[in-house]
Amino acid sequence: MRHRDESEVEFSRIVSFSDGVFAIAITLLVLGLTVPEHSTDLTQALLDNHNDLLAYAISFAVLGKYWLSHHRFFSILERFDGTLMGLNLLYLAFIALVPFTSGVLGDYDSNTAAIVLYAINMILVSGTFFAQVVYSYRNGLVRPEARAFERRYAGPANLIVIGVFLVSIPVAFVSPLAATLMWLVIFLVGARVSDRVSPTSS
Amino acid sequence: MRHRDESEVEFSRIVSFSDGVFAIAITLLVLGLTVPEHSTDLTQALLDNHNDLLAYAISFAVLGKYWLSHHRFFSILERFDGTLMGLNLLYLAFIALVPFTSGVLGDYDSNTAAIVLYAINMILVSGTFFAQVVYSYRNGLVRPEARAFERRYAGPANLIVIGVFLVSIPVAFVSPLAATLMWLVIFLVGARVSDRVSPTSS
Amino acid sequence: MRHRDESEVEFSRIVSFSDGVFAIAITLLVLGLTVPEHSTDLTQALLDNHNDLLAYAISFAVLGKYWLSHHRFFSILERFDGTLMGLNLLYLAFIALVPFTSGVLGDYDSNTAAIVLYAINMILVSGTFFAQVVYSYRNGLVRPEARAFERRYAGPANLIVIGVFLVSIPVAFVSPLAATLMWLVIFLVGARVSDRVSPTSS
Amino acid sequence: MRHRDESEVEFSRIVSFSDGVFAIAITLLVLGLTVPEHSTDLTQALLDNHNDLLAYAISFAVLGKYWLSHHRFFSILERFDGTLMGLNLLYLAFIALVPFTSGVLGDYDSNTAAIVLYAINMILVSGTFFAQVVYSYRNGLVRPEARAFERRYAGPANLIVIGVFLVSIPVAFVSPLAATLMWLVIFLVGARVSDRVSPTSS
Repeated sequence: MRHRDESEVEFSRIVSFSDGVFAIAITLLVLGLTVPEHSTDLTQALLDNHNDLLAYAISFAVLGKYWLSHHRFFSILERFDGTLMGLNLLYLAFIALVPFTSGVLGDYDSNTAAIVLYAINMILVSGTFFAQVVYSYRNGLVRPEARAFERRYAGPANLIVIGVFLVSIPVAFVSPLAATLMWLVIFLVGARVSDRVSPTSS
Repeated sequence: MRHRDESEVEFSRIVSFSDGVFAIAITLLVLGLTVPEHSTDLTQALLDNHNDLLAYAISFAVLGKYWLSHHRFFSILERFDGTLMGLNLLYLAFIALVPFTSGVLGDYDSNTAAIVLYAINMILVSGTFFAQVVYSYRNGLVRPEARAFERRYAGPANLIVIGVFLVSIPVAFVSPLAATLMWLVIFLVGARVSDRVSPTSS
Repeated sequence: MRHRDESEVEFSRIVSFSDGVFAIAITLLVLGLTVPEHSTDLTQALLDNHNDLLAYAISFAVLGKYWLSHHRFFSILERFDGTLMGLNLLYLAFIALVPFTSGVLGDYDSNTAAIVLYAINMILVSGTFFAQVVYSYRNGLVRPEARAFERRYAGPANLIVIGVFLVSIPVAFVSPLAATLMWLVIFLVGARVSDRVSPTSS
Repeated sequence: MRHRDESEVEFSRIVSFSDGVFAIAITLLVLGLTVPEHSTDLTQALLDNHNDLLAYAISFAVLGKYWLSHHRFFSILERFDGTLMGLNLLYLAFIALVPFTSGVLGDYDSNTAAIVLYAINMILVSGTFFAQVVYSYRNGLVRPEARAFERRYAGPANLIVIGVFLVSIPVAFVSPLAATLMWLVIFLVGARVSDRVSPTSS
């Protein structure tokens, strides 16, 4: 286990590697947007693409939000060890999957399988993020002044996100639209909660 | 709200994340250039591709210019807060769209819908950049010595760019070529203005 | 030959360039996952894709592991020279190939040619990494306190990995499944060994 | 014009943006390697792909070499200004084109048009790099101790590269193979010259 300041170069390499994966994944979302090269009616082809654009917007917002959380979490870390790096890599593997699941969501909107796939991806992202947070708190990797934070907020907030995505899976079999609206609710509530609990605003 | 020096690591993460998105978006432009794998006349296929190359050149110049502006703007920032980070993410979402709208422009030159799509993308990029500049000035996030700058230049210059792109939309319905030429004018005028007003040249 | 501290900017450029290639290669793996845009049965199409997902998981783990080793190795470097930079570039060329060979493995599972291609790629990655380690030790580019490390572990561990991949090539002609299982063994054993020998755990 | 140390953050942003474009362009080369998803004979399909692999190897080596030169050149810079940044962006635009021209070269080997396209790309890369070097020397942006360097080496070496690529264009109309061999010569000679003239080896 190493202190952040003793090995600033290595710590910043992990951070910048994570940022790199986020930046690339978020930019690869654009590859989900495609228009046939020789369409006779481009306006129509673009309008038919509105689901791709919606999936792009949702996924950009989701990845942006996860990046902000990751950013905030790493700013309260004091130490790191091999296990945390492994968990972080696993988390990044699910982040890097988003361009794929988002692309499927854009091509097959209101399709149960596409929504379930996307929900599973989000559960895996939130779950591995939650695991990083819990592991770091349990093993004293976090700055002392930030320790009160988790007991009150980080744990519950993450579990709610995971719970809503879990519930949206059976819902998607009944009504794909209702499942999508549930996500919107998490997103808006999540924005509120994270504003209130941000360690930077205290 | 945090001072840049108190949290240099976080500030530089935002900057490098933004740079990452710019670098990836600008490099993904190349994916808009394609040649069929088994064309009988490659020379002809490459010449037919001249619009793709033109779209590549325009978009590289545009993204390069936006990156320089972003770079310059962040160099005069003294503080940042959550709202600015949110605006910056929104801005990056429109930056990351450019490879798509540029690809459409390359495949469908002198098509009104392609030009309107590109103009809308540029308006959204300029608009969210303008919002960042205004927000930062209003909330004292900018170094004191740079404060005179905006009142005279940054605001008007951005509004002109947005205005010209807005006007180019109805023009594109009459003459796609005229709309494209209007962009060229902004680009050349913009280059002049930004040279004169650059805080680095004073 | 230059000391790391005398030219910290250049050293960190090499490191961040390497991290960039790793982050991009690992994120491009997602491009190997594709689903036809207008499939009538998306659930079936996704299930048919399970080999692509498996190849994604294997390659993410493999690249993540190589990145950790590279990270650890560069943290014990004290100096670098042109030869080491050239070897590092060669190594990165094979790292950047992984999205291709991994994509082939996902599309053609239990195909001897796909497995041989992937094994060759891994041998080239491990071989050029081994060459960097040996070169750096022989030429005194490594911090003195880390010098005992290689004689006992780094050399043998790398040679085992290369050996197992070499042996898996003839095995793949008899049983593709057995070859794939051999890789799993290296991966698990490798994880153990690297945990025990990590210079950071001493 | 600003001194490097006065604005270390901005200087390092330019450097890391350039590195990002290089890292992405070099990693996107892998997208030029493709194998049909349902080929009946994968071994044959991979062997048919040997030109793609060759183009990958050439372009990785070329981009790696340009990156090393860029790296070395920026390490002797003392100041930078807007013109140098503009030239650098133009240079990066041609660097980012390489995955396209390299992909064409891989798909159409021994085709005159593909070779001419690649040679033009290389001339534009070398030309804009040469322009950056000359501009920086003429305008005193280079560290004083490095000033003797250019008069003797950097200029002539670059001009030879540009000259050989220029000559290879008419040669490609007679013999595509001869043109490709000429490139190999530059590459080997260039490696020698750059080893001898590297300011880091003195």
